[in-house]
Amino acid sequence: MTADRNTSRASATPPRGFPPQEFEQRLAAAQAQMRAQRLDALLLSTEPEVRYFSGFHSQFWESPTRPWFLIVPLEGKPVAVIPEIGLSGMAATWLDDIRTWPAPRPEDDGISLLAETITALSRRYGRLGVPMGHETFLRLPLQDFQKLSTRLAALEIIDCAPLIRQLRFIKSPAEIARIHHICDLASAAFENLPQRMHSGQSEREICQDFRMDLLRRGADNSPYLISGSGPDGYDNIIMGPSDRIIEQGDVLIIDTGTTFDGYFCDFDRNFAFGKVSDLTRRAYDTVYRATDAGFAAARPGATLRDIWVAMWNILEAGGALGNDVGRMGHGLGMQLTEGPSVTDRDDTPLRPGAVLTLEPGMTYAPGKQMVHEENIIITENGARLLSRRASPELPIIS
Amino acid sequence: MTADRNTSRASATPPRGFPPQEFEQRLAAAQAQMRAQRLDALLLSTEPEVRYFSGFHSQFWESPTRPWFLIVPLEGKPVAVIPEIGLSGMAATWLDDIRTWPAPRPEDDGISLLAETITALSRRYGRLGVPMGHETFLRLPLQDFQKLSTRLAALEIIDCAPLIRQLRFIKSPAEIARIHHICDLASAAFENLPQRMHSGQSEREICQDFRMDLLRRGADNSPYLISGSGPDGYDNIIMGPSDRIIEQGDVLIIDTGTTFDGYFCDFDRNFAFGKVSDLTRRAYDTVYRATDAGFAAARPGATLRDIWVAMWNILEAGGALGNDVGRMGHGLGMQLTEGPSVTDRDDTPLRPGAVLTLEPGMTYAPGKQMVHEENIIITENGARLLSRRASPELPIIS
Repeated sequence: MTADRNTSRASATPPRGFPPQEFEQRLAAAQAQMRAQRLDALLLSTEPEVRYFSGFHSQFWESPTRPWFLIVPLEGKPVAVIPEIGLSGMAATWLDDIRTWPAPRPEDDGISLLAETITALSRRYGRLGVPMGHETFLRLPLQDFQKLSTRLAALEIIDCAPLIRQLRFIKSPAEIARIHHICDLASAAFENLPQRMHSGQSEREICQDFRMDLLRRGADNSPYLISGSGPDGYDNIIMGPSDRIIEQGDVLIIDTGTTFDGYFCDFDRNFAFGKVSDLTRRAYDTVYRATDAGFAAARPGATLRDIWVAMWNILEAGGALGNDVGRMGHGLGMQLTEGPSVTDRDDTPLRPGAVLTLEPGMTYAPGKQMVHEENIIITENGARLLSRRASPELPIIS
Repeated sequence: MTADRNTSRASATPPRGFPPQEFEQRLAAAQAQMRAQRLDALLLSTEPEVRYFSGFHSQFWESPTRPWFLIVPLEGKPVAVIPEIGLSGMAATWLDDIRTWPAPRPEDDGISLLAETITALSRRYGRLGVPMGHETFLRLPLQDFQKLSTRLAALEIIDCAPLIRQLRFIKSPAEIARIHHICDLASAAFENLPQRMHSGQSEREICQDFRMDLLRRGADNSPYLISGSGPDGYDNIIMGPSDRIIEQGDVLIIDTGTTFDGYFCDFDRNFAFGKVSDLTRRAYDTVYRATDAGFAAARPGATLRDIWVAMWNILEAGGALGNDVGRMGHGLGMQLTEGPSVTDRDDTPLRPGAVLTLEPGMTYAPGKQMVHEENIIITENGARLLSRRASPELPIIS
């Protein structure tokens, strides 16, 4: 990968929030798909779905108590049906029609109000879209959804997960600017890490120091910041950080999903301390070259399967014993991971504006994994890096 | 509230993780309830539910892609049905029976394996508990749950939300030590805040500096850290921090849910800059006294309604125009907010070991709210503070 494929090293801090035009475009794209799929409305209940169409951006979703609803009608702006506590925040968005109830009210936590609101919509097709497929869930009690379904028995409920996934996979310039910015901050923090850490520290100390460095550089938070380590390799990439002390001869991986204005980066970096075996050095070289191959394959018209095949060929030739991650990359944006997945079964075609991670990984010896990750965007001319490319050789911390 | 009701100022850092006995006790308590409610098994799918019974503690839940399942049978240890990527992490818990599939696999993302596992359980009652009631959701695609229900048509599916809520409301000494510890760290950071902030800073600057102070003191992360501010009062407690610059005469609230080893504190503090009106000063005094009244009412045998009434009487006498939060406190532990809620409709009796927040709040003038919050534990002799009591007078930052 040549240097000119790299993105510029410094990105200006994007403004926070989006102008109404951004939401108008998202809505128009959704409504065009809704017409094609003959849906009168979409009913959405999770944080990213509600934020995507309304701009409502609050940490309050961390509390699981109250359900929140957004209805995207076939014509006109979305309608919010939300707890009273959210009224002033939602009123500050581009929405006009906001209906509230005094939540929490377990005996009727918004369900009557929601059913009345949906029932009063103009009806052309008699079909309501609800995300029900892969990588979705309903953020309301199942009993309440059952009550709602009874109230809406005249409507056919249709899975709209593919519609939402397809829309969100392609990012606008304003969304890309945010992802690029947080990738830039995390790249700088990763590049600074070798000067900050040393053997004798615990995984947890290293990770918390890294977390503070990310904050000082302008990140909002790091909802995902894990590590794995072990003598000459690690066996796990989702459980740390632990209190394990890093020793000479260890290999350490740190992976972070860090945010700016509600958008994530998601990539990792590997480090060796003092020395490393040839086997592990070669494994690093293999996943690095697999990333290059995935990058080259990531062009408009290619599918996620094409990326997977390009990467797996390199990993297999490099001695991969298997991959227990289950995929080698995924969409990225308002969530740490978004659909679609880079697997041998995913035929989603790439289009300009798609943002995804390339995450080739393999078990290269019993109990030893090597995983690499970069974040990219698809342009008309091929892929561009959003993260700054990792070192071509496994960095050794002396 | 006298000083001796305060908890000690320094708490030793608790060890991370729990011994197997902790999980054995949780399981035994659950199974006793399951027998009483004639349930053959519980099917759990969310992070806190799975962690509560298994000890599996990973940030990987931040990725929405893969479902995870835990089955709590009527006899014997829980059985994990999880993505292959989680095997080594789950194998490090106290569980023995761990079944995996290569997720993500949209065409059958664990559902066949899960159905087979549940079907093979010994069956006494023909009833399966699934959390379906207030404050719950299923963390799997609705379509997959529908497929599962078809496969399990011989079983009656029963809401087990009350069973789980009741168990988790009462904390063990080891859980209390964690909550107390994070309350202590956050109390110290709040007490230090007047020396760190000044007018001319933005809400965001103040909050990010506070976030870093929490980390330096030993917190793991702050998934919830919001602020609200305005001239002589704020109108919103769930949307910030914003880039609004704090000026002389402003009132600022900061509220945080910060974690240690997977357990939350959740409390706020109010500050005035330079000066404050008598009206706002009195509002602070009112919510402060309401907290005292709630604290006094929080004794074994009393209900959450009793706490609510004690607090609301003070707020009403103090000129409350209303409360749009919808409740005045809630359970606290593995989540920022847990059931039950402090409302005028909740009859849950308090028992020793219950941890909750007291959160009296009111609108005291158009567009002006005052909210106060402390974290407490119920003992046989009444409530004890876990957070260190706020200043009895609204602190004024000069």
